[in-house]
Amino acid sequence: MIHKILIANRAEIAVRVIRACRDLHIKSVAVFTEPDKECLHVKIADEAYRIGTDAIRGYLDITRIIEIAKACKADAIHPGYGFLSENHEFAKACEDAGIIFIGPKSEVIYKMGNKNIARALMNSNGIPIIPGTEKLNNYSLDEIKTLALRIGYPVILKASAGGGGRGIRVVYKEEELESALESCKREAFNFFKNDEIFMEKYIINPRHIEFQILGDNYGNIIHLCERDCSIQRRHQKVIEIAPCPGISDNLRKTMGVTAVAAAKAVGYTNAGTIEFLLDDYNRFYFMEMNTRIQVEHPITEEITGVDLIVRQIRIAGGEILDIEQSDIKPRGFAIEARITAENVWKNFIPNPGKINEYYPALGPSVRVDSHIYKDYIIPPSYDSLLAKLIIKATSYDLAVNKLERALKEFVIDGVRTTIPFLIAITKTREFRRGYFDTSFINTHMQELLEKTEDRHQNNKEEVIAAIAATLKKIREEREHI
Amino acid sequence: MIHKILIANRAEIAVRVIRACRDLHIKSVAVFTEPDKECLHVKIADEAYRIGTDAIRGYLDITRIIEIAKACKADAIHPGYGFLSENHEFAKACEDAGIIFIGPKSEVIYKMGNKNIARALMNSNGIPIIPGTEKLNNYSLDEIKTLALRIGYPVILKASAGGGGRGIRVVYKEEELESALESCKREAFNFFKNDEIFMEKYIINPRHIEFQILGDNYGNIIHLCERDCSIQRRHQKVIEIAPCPGISDNLRKTMGVTAVAAAKAVGYTNAGTIEFLLDDYNRFYFMEMNTRIQVEHPITEEITGVDLIVRQIRIAGGEILDIEQSDIKPRGFAIEARITAENVWKNFIPNPGKINEYYPALGPSVRVDSHIYKDYIIPPSYDSLLAKLIIKATSYDLAVNKLERALKEFVIDGVRTTIPFLIAITKTREFRRGYFDTSFINTHMQELLEKTEDRHQNNKEEVIAAIAATLKKIREEREHI
Repeated sequence: MIHKILIANRAEIAVRVIRACRDLHIKSVAVFTEPDKECLHVKIADEAYRIGTDAIRGYLDITRIIEIAKACKADAIHPGYGFLSENHEFAKACEDAGIIFIGPKSEVIYKMGNKNIARALMNSNGIPIIPGTEKLNNYSLDEIKTLALRIGYPVILKASAGGGGRGIRVVYKEEELESALESCKREAFNFFKNDEIFMEKYIINPRHIEFQILGDNYGNIIHLCERDCSIQRRHQKVIEIAPCPGISDNLRKTMGVTAVAAAKAVGYTNAGTIEFLLDDYNRFYFMEMNTRIQVEHPITEEITGVDLIVRQIRIAGGEILDIEQSDIKPRGFAIEARITAENVWKNFIPNPGKINEYYPALGPSVRVDSHIYKDYIIPPSYDSLLAKLIIKATSYDLAVNKLERALKEFVIDGVRTTIPFLIAITKTREFRRGYFDTSFINTHMQELLEKTEDRHQNNKEEVIAAIAATLKKIREEREHI
Repeated sequence: MIHKILIANRAEIAVRVIRACRDLHIKSVAVFTEPDKECLHVKIADEAYRIGTDAIRGYLDITRIIEIAKACKADAIHPGYGFLSENHEFAKACEDAGIIFIGPKSEVIYKMGNKNIARALMNSNGIPIIPGTEKLNNYSLDEIKTLALRIGYPVILKASAGGGGRGIRVVYKEEELESALESCKREAFNFFKNDEIFMEKYIINPRHIEFQILGDNYGNIIHLCERDCSIQRRHQKVIEIAPCPGISDNLRKTMGVTAVAAAKAVGYTNAGTIEFLLDDYNRFYFMEMNTRIQVEHPITEEITGVDLIVRQIRIAGGEILDIEQSDIKPRGFAIEARITAENVWKNFIPNPGKINEYYPALGPSVRVDSHIYKDYIIPPSYDSLLAKLIIKATSYDLAVNKLERALKEFVIDGVRTTIPFLIAITKTREFRRGYFDTSFINTHMQELLEKTEDRHQNNKEEVIAAIAATLKKIREEREHI
């Protein structure tokens, strides 16, 4: 039995965990860095401790967090998402200190966090992975051509040390391979001082479909259906939907069984997510496992009725999972829209500042998970998420209508937010019909910006210029890949 | 197909209906009386028309409302609850004007609104009614004694013209009958200028259990499970729960089948509610049918996933009900707490005024249906409902915990509210265990007041005096019955 939980995180997810603690009559402990002292999680926790003056560093300070947990006699730590949540050393430090880490074992975090180990483990357990090679630097051009033919074009070349969209090249046919290899290696060396590259099949405009996993400490593992997270901007999820509209029940079942097998292969415990890419031929590939709660977990809660944070805590406290796979009967559709403090008209740059007015959407089918309040000053150092608006309804189309209604009722004044852009998404024919993949936002950017009502009333020429600049940026990124 | 709906109501339920209109992309029209012009329903409707200067009278002005509906080309009217919602003449006036009344036919409203007709209709269709007599004034004392024996003691004498708790007497044994008859007749005459009385079986501390009905215009009728509305104060519901905790599935099924049979007997269409009383021996009796949407409809929406207002509109628009009884699979538990502007310490007198601060509860499992906002001034002429807090969870006990959490997060400042009293209810052992009937609040009043934290900090003697006064009042009322 857990009596007191320290939440090693901030803002929305810290508030979410504190609410779950209250629901279970468990004491909650917040930590905060100096610039974050007015954040809601600090105000509503039963206890709160400062962990330094730097905005970020405190939330990454393993030693200090464990010290506080010991001093205030917390018997468990919830890591939230981001920060230390997928840091196996943090989980290990908790284990060593005799504090329950609310998540999987440190060893499991390590394995799933290492791309090579995870891929090998999945492959040896029958989980489809994206076809690819080990490092290519010792292969001849002819050998690489053979490998590419075996994988099938298009292929993508990636720098082993890569990140941020640098050191990658998509190759559509054999003639392009040689020059792509050279330029990729060159860029890899220039950016990362390491010219190691490898090759993978390039999945064109896939759908991003992920399965929520829940496992207890006794080998019971189930999935709680899938989420479609294809609506992304620069690999950041913007809108998520559960279940995934427009896939067959057969495919859904196969993917679910595969997700559970993947989690079992690594001996997974607590909540986690198996992410797949789905291509145009309904072939799906293991992408990665997130060994923590996800931002978008609420939509799974809405369709399954299961409170995932409550379940995380109960499982970590040693309870047997009293839900079987056959008990999971998803109902209706749920959609989450991430409302962020960003200036849509300036290529979505973060827009911190003071919240002058705050009227969250309310009423039927509406849930709001947030840490902001009127007069709160958004500190500039953190990510720009202000609120998660979650909608549920019996059908996908009614859920979209309700999302539109709630977005239009949602008032945040003082900073520019993505609310008008999200409303624009709900108005596109493709979104309303559920026809989308990860290319949706880029493909529809012009239409979306034209549909985005600007309450701050830029003049028409400014808007046209902003649209042109954004589209140019997207084109450049696309050509670069 | 309906294109524009006039909502002949105000406040919370008008806001609720406007949201449903938006969900269906239907235009909404608000009406308001002068003192109500700042109410939220006026602000969020697509159009709004004033219907007079008197606070109440406009909402009862059939002619004016129909005129406005015609003038603005509304093709349907939603009556909400209260006001004209169960007025068969209003429904008839809509029918005559060629405007769709979103509710049952005027004739059905008339039949179910007349106690004698409704009882006779139910009785002849095999629906259990509370055993009782017609008017007793022409019977001899001996004949009345025989009738009472047949019904079984205790019995209750009621003035035919009665209301407001006047002109009623409970009789526990034959010796008390004669004097009770005389005093009841006398009081009936004094209060209502009509000494007609009748006799019914007196159900001691029943549970109030009601079934949500939905029927289309083509004879398809289903129920959407039950609600327990036993937590009442002076016959006003305070907290409602769906489904009813602690009754057997057998009984639930029998009551559900009976409720549908009752609705079929009268040819019911649209949304309605069959109210039953359940006694200690699990015998249930038809009490009445409410031929409109209920205040507590959201808890049914939460457990069934069905949006009742959306369904009302679709049915009124001529759609076939595409849900069968077997499709209704309730999930988890939902609880609604009615937050009212009342001074608990002054025997719950209404407490209108200005809302200085308003932070509705948010987050997982929480829904808030309300018409108030910061700086809103509650007009004194209306009922004191400020907000409905609706909670859902997989189990009853988790729902109670979540209710407690959300109530504690709910901030309304400027007027006294029942939030601290509602929190006190969540802390009682009987409520937590689901052991309650309609006597709960009266029986537990002392405990509840002692547990009610007074943020306005009356001094201790004032609190003790207030408790004593409230208990005295309850005793007097009880003795009077």
